[in-house]
Amino acid sequence: MRQDQHSIELQTRGAGLYEFTDHVAAFVADSGIETGLVTVFCRHTSCSLLVQENADPDVQRDLKGYFARIAPEGMDWIVHTTEGPDDMPAHIRTALTQSSIGVPVGHGELLLGTWQGIYLFEHRARPHRRQIVMHIIGE
Amino acid sequence: MRQDQHSIELQTRGAGLYEFTDHVAAFVADSGIETGLVTVFCRHTSCSLLVQENADPDVQRDLKGYFARIAPEGMDWIVHTTEGPDDMPAHIRTALTQSSIGVPVGHGELLLGTWQGIYLFEHRARPHRRQIVMHIIGE
Amino acid sequence: MRQDQHSIELQTRGAGLYEFTDHVAAFVADSGIETGLVTVFCRHTSCSLLVQENADPDVQRDLKGYFARIAPEGMDWIVHTTEGPDDMPAHIRTALTQSSIGVPVGHGELLLGTWQGIYLFEHRARPHRRQIVMHIIGE
Repeated sequence: MRQDQHSIELQTRGAGLYEFTDHVAAFVADSGIETGLVTVFCRHTSCSLLVQENADPDVQRDLKGYFARIAPEGMDWIVHTTEGPDDMPAHIRTALTQSSIGVPVGHGELLLGTWQGIYLFEHRARPHRRQIVMHIIGE
Repeated sequence: MRQDQHSIELQTRGAGLYEFTDHVAAFVADSGIETGLVTVFCRHTSCSLLVQENADPDVQRDLKGYFARIAPEGMDWIVHTTEGPDDMPAHIRTALTQSSIGVPVGHGELLLGTWQGIYLFEHRARPHRRQIVMHIIGE
Repeated sequence: MRQDQHSIELQTRGAGLYEFTDHVAAFVADSGIETGLVTVFCRHTSCSLLVQENADPDVQRDLKGYFARIAPEGMDWIVHTTEGPDDMPAHIRTALTQSSIGVPVGHGELLLGTWQGIYLFEHRARPHRRQIVMHIIGE
């Protein structure tokens, strides 16, 4: 049994989904591990992770639209406003999605479904550099 | 340290929760692993996974009811409508729940709480065959 | 490759976020594992887990406020009411957050971001004792 670990940085340009399946797939390939488990972890609390459809870009647009509606800027009961009007909604959207995702590996590849991609979901309005840690264990 | 991996298919019959704890427990037993970690992964973006109460079936009914209300069919701002009115709400409900869940194993059994079961949460209206990948590592 | 596993109990005093990062960090340190993966699992269906900001306590207050609004007590269509008015909202809030979280370990420490803490999110109104299982694998 072996393991490997690697960090990457992704540059975002405003709220929305940023696919980075290729980075995770390359990490799996580089590890040489054929069967195992990859865990992807987001080191922030105002962006998150999703496994979602990578076929029609409208799905990503609608996901962004939904979270902008369900946790909008300007909720008048919010107390934490010092970091800007988009900060607390970003924390909430992060809580509603995920900070870590585990994906099984088989035949040296991510066992994602046909239409699945791995996304960083940026919830802040301004550009950010985001750190993602990937860990793989297997043989 | 050892690992094992297995895929199963579950048949759904419309939106709702389908418990498959028994499948995961059987996989753990077959592996012979006494202590470790099981990861369950859903290979789709319009159904998802939940650990939820398996005592009162009304809990499952209310969970289905809640997600039908919080991400209903017919939201008029949705762009992705080509796969049917239930498709984009299904992607949203998937984003609000989980695609992968890790459960520790001890004494050869899933360390679930007394009332916990592992569920596939189907979000589409029509019947589907759904693929779940299970991975276990431990000794 | 080695692994370790440990259960803890946390006492809650009503709905809200309870940080237990220190417990997980101590578990990692005690294991002696330098590089690997920790998985934290919540053995209940009316409380859940979150990785969230541990800098400004108002973030935790607003998260509590948000989930009280998005899944409030008193929704009139709820069927499962036998365990009290806060029980079904608690199941829903659990479904909207997470029951298990994986965090990579490096240099013998949790690879959390600067502002990240690991929280138990209690959704019930009365005090409860909550069981959390921690599993680590690595070397």
